[in-house]
Amino acid sequence: MHEITEAKSVVLLSGGQDSTTCLYWALQEFGSTVALTFDYQQRHRVELECAQQVARLAGVPQKTLPINTFSALGNNALNETLPIGVNQETGLPNTFVPGRNFIFLTFAAAYAYPRGIRNLVIGVSQIDYSGYPDCREGSLKTLQQALCLGLDYEISIHTPLMHLSKKEVIELAIQLGAFPALALTHTCYLGQQPPCGKCPACRIRAQGFAAAGVSDPLLFSV
Amino acid sequence: MHEITEAKSVVLLSGGQDSTTCLYWALQEFGSTVALTFDYQQRHRVELECAQQVARLAGVPQKTLPINTFSALGNNALNETLPIGVNQETGLPNTFVPGRNFIFLTFAAAYAYPRGIRNLVIGVSQIDYSGYPDCREGSLKTLQQALCLGLDYEISIHTPLMHLSKKEVIELAIQLGAFPALALTHTCYLGQQPPCGKCPACRIRAQGFAAAGVSDPLLFSV
Repeated sequence: MHEITEAKSVVLLSGGQDSTTCLYWALQEFGSTVALTFDYQQRHRVELECAQQVARLAGVPQKTLPINTFSALGNNALNETLPIGVNQETGLPNTFVPGRNFIFLTFAAAYAYPRGIRNLVIGVSQIDYSGYPDCREGSLKTLQQALCLGLDYEISIHTPLMHLSKKEVIELAIQLGAFPALALTHTCYLGQQPPCGKCPACRIRAQGFAAAGVSDPLLFSV
Repeated sequence: MHEITEAKSVVLLSGGQDSTTCLYWALQEFGSTVALTFDYQQRHRVELECAQQVARLAGVPQKTLPINTFSALGNNALNETLPIGVNQETGLPNTFVPGRNFIFLTFAAAYAYPRGIRNLVIGVSQIDYSGYPDCREGSLKTLQQALCLGLDYEISIHTPLMHLSKKEVIELAIQLGAFPALALTHTCYLGQQPPCGKCPACRIRAQGFAAAGVSDPLLFSV
């Protein structure tokens, strides 16, 4: 395992398949990376364990940072006991936490800055997803520009999955050697292991594997 | 006191004189506001009490949100036991917390969004200050643009003190009727009451009052 101080990039590692794929992408692209995971009191603590296991398998140092602010803000189903659904007013899934990725990336930048790291990697995509506005390329390019100005420090936000379908993400994971790590990832919104197979996250995951013509290693590992 | 649900703006109220002046500016500009204070485990808990007292005097609802992430990040003197000084590498005061205002404003936007509030107010200034890059107009204009895209929601960041000297801030406070509230504010980096009078924050405050030709009401209230 390389040291954090040598790392050339920070990957936001949630413990899901997209960020896991990004971890391997960052290793290939930059030669070294640190995995940053946020404990924002999400519904499923299992995500945090998955992130640790994935980082260990990849041989990458991993740091978990706490964020207790989202639960104090309330208003979303990710870390509350609200049922998962659609917000009638905004039309967005009520798992949408306004500004969540911006907070994650800004804290990641604050982590990177004193360590001389200039690359942040996040596994968001514009397609095949729920339409969160903070996952769009234009939003993240503008945030990158704001971070460079606000820190007075050149830093890049990389989004290697931005224009990939779920199928293509799985193909990329295979190409990068990340496929075995997908067995350690977590997707199910209900936090079930084995996954419920019915929630939107499970359904999207299953569609991706089906389209890529491979079996989900997670289903064979539990 | 008006209700939060009627508020037209959110002011970031730290408990200092600048944000206190902004609170009164927002009341005049928008007719109603909510004061949002962040408990980021700063050195001086007294700031949080000052914010509450200022909001009470102004008749404005006040909400304190916790952020436990900065202390987990470390690397700065604001919420650690490091002595206040200058970071030799960056030339910035070691009270600089990279991205702090961005985090505050993004959480403020996340607070405003479900409440239909479209104006955020922050008491930063480009002049007479310590040169933090996240206080500059260009940084904040770009963040505003990023937030509008990332939330898919029109929201403005107002910086009424951006081009004012400390002297002009005090003149504005007097003009807005905020002067009595300045007696409740807190500035001293060392957290002393009465203020130490020697730290950079106390010295800048004293210079402002001297230049405006008025006495600091804080010094007569303790």
